[in-house]
Amino acid sequence: MIFLSGGVRLKTRRSDRLIDMTRYLLERPHTLISLTFFAKRYESAKSSISEDLAIIKRTFKFRGIGILETIPGAAGGARFIPSIDEQEARDFIQNMTERLSEKDRLLPGGYVYLSDLLGRPDVLRQVGRVIARQYLDKQIDAVMTVATKGVPIAQSVSNYLNVPFVILRRDSKITEGSTVSVNYVSGSSERIEKMELSKRSLKRGSHVLVVDDFMKGGGTVNGMKSMIEEFESEMVGITVFAEAAFEGHRMVDDYTSLLKVDQVNTLNKTIHVSAGNYLEKVFGK
Amino acid sequence: MIFLSGGVRLKTRRSDRLIDMTRYLLERPHTLISLTFFAKRYESAKSSISEDLAIIKRTFKFRGIGILETIPGAAGGARFIPSIDEQEARDFIQNMTERLSEKDRLLPGGYVYLSDLLGRPDVLRQVGRVIARQYLDKQIDAVMTVATKGVPIAQSVSNYLNVPFVILRRDSKITEGSTVSVNYVSGSSERIEKMELSKRSLKRGSHVLVVDDFMKGGGTVNGMKSMIEEFESEMVGITVFAEAAFEGHRMVDDYTSLLKVDQVNTLNKTIHVSAGNYLEKVFGK
Repeated sequence: MIFLSGGVRLKTRRSDRLIDMTRYLLERPHTLISLTFFAKRYESAKSSISEDLAIIKRTFKFRGIGILETIPGAAGGARFIPSIDEQEARDFIQNMTERLSEKDRLLPGGYVYLSDLLGRPDVLRQVGRVIARQYLDKQIDAVMTVATKGVPIAQSVSNYLNVPFVILRRDSKITEGSTVSVNYVSGSSERIEKMELSKRSLKRGSHVLVVDDFMKGGGTVNGMKSMIEEFESEMVGITVFAEAAFEGHRMVDDYTSLLKVDQVNTLNKTIHVSAGNYLEKVFGK
Repeated sequence: MIFLSGGVRLKTRRSDRLIDMTRYLLERPHTLISLTFFAKRYESAKSSISEDLAIIKRTFKFRGIGILETIPGAAGGARFIPSIDEQEARDFIQNMTERLSEKDRLLPGGYVYLSDLLGRPDVLRQVGRVIARQYLDKQIDAVMTVATKGVPIAQSVSNYLNVPFVILRRDSKITEGSTVSVNYVSGSSERIEKMELSKRSLKRGSHVLVVDDFMKGGGTVNGMKSMIEEFESEMVGITVFAEAAFEGHRMVDDYTSLLKVDQVNTLNKTIHVSAGNYLEKVFGK
């Protein structure tokens, strides 16, 4: 009886811990949470917490939620690294190719209407997980994008990497304090344009991931590259939600795309969209 | 012995379910997940799933994570409504008043530099939870904001309410297809400005929540109100991250602010920031 009642009590408390720890870890990706912190929070022995973490680690792996890195010993703890299974990533990208191929998405100039998808929280969560998956073992200090349409993607990736994001602007009306500006050639139209970034928004020596919604000639992305150099920082990678088929020389070559708009026929208003190079880059053939 | 081994097996499977269900529910706020779905996912009896949900409900309440609405019976299920405890909301707002009062945030024109805070995922998560808390029992179909600085707030609120967000733009360069435009008076500068919204981004008859980062005269927010009328939709509420002290007649009266910039002294560069009307509106007193 004592054992049983002890067992029941233990089970109840463990349930509470598992639920709260899961949520606590999910909300703080890439952050080491110490055994001491959890032990205090739940008034439990570190040995029990260690067992809890082992269970969570196993489930996170089995369910494709991500990696729970556990650091053993009394001074140890756990760090949640969000990820996504290959199959779930493939399904998501496949689903997006179908959505993007809808013929009423075609806009003048060969652009594709994306604002509905990139305004949906469920889509943005998966975009964030998918992109974060590619960089889970890289040091990244900030995610960079350009206003306005890149912002939701940057924010979602930033959420899963748990680092800040910074926004470049093409207009200078907005009050941001002192800014640094760069000129860049808009690849698709060959105009010279200007982008600005608030001086205080990025530290020197940062490792920066560039994301954007759509890439044609790569001029905008190239402008962000120049901006990163102006801040004496390092570009870790470039990932775009969709790339357009582009005749001619692209200004950047090493980039990742989730989707590729292969063909746009403005006459009969059809779009053909396939998977970008993400799946091959991240999971191999 | 049989009991024990059965107990151990049961405990293990329940642990896995609790962890995965917690994560599954957290990622799908305001969505009814059926008992049938969970029973199939875990190859478990509905009665076991019901017990799991009761445990999760208790922990979510006890830990201030939110409300788990459970619908009883075989056709039932559970719906997670994110929320935040009064104490946690107070602590967050208190913390933000301190951060906003930092003297180097003062920009020309009495504006306050917010981009660092509104680019941090941890801050944005709390902003989203706090704002979503106010509207948890309201029907909301979309969150609306204006580019660029309102976007991160809209996205975070949209994430916790699990509805799309739409972005109004002041520039018309961006390719969005056909748009609807409205003119509005910028309250602080008394200029006539124009904002646009893509026609297809909002359905007629939507219930819309307006959010923005900063409000002075309320002109921009008033413009969004006009836009909602153009779409024959209904405005459910207005919440801004920070309001500025404003001499004169504000264009909107029924709004909520998390923070209030009371005093700005451009000579000695000091800012005084206090809590906005959010706490009183939501928790009383």
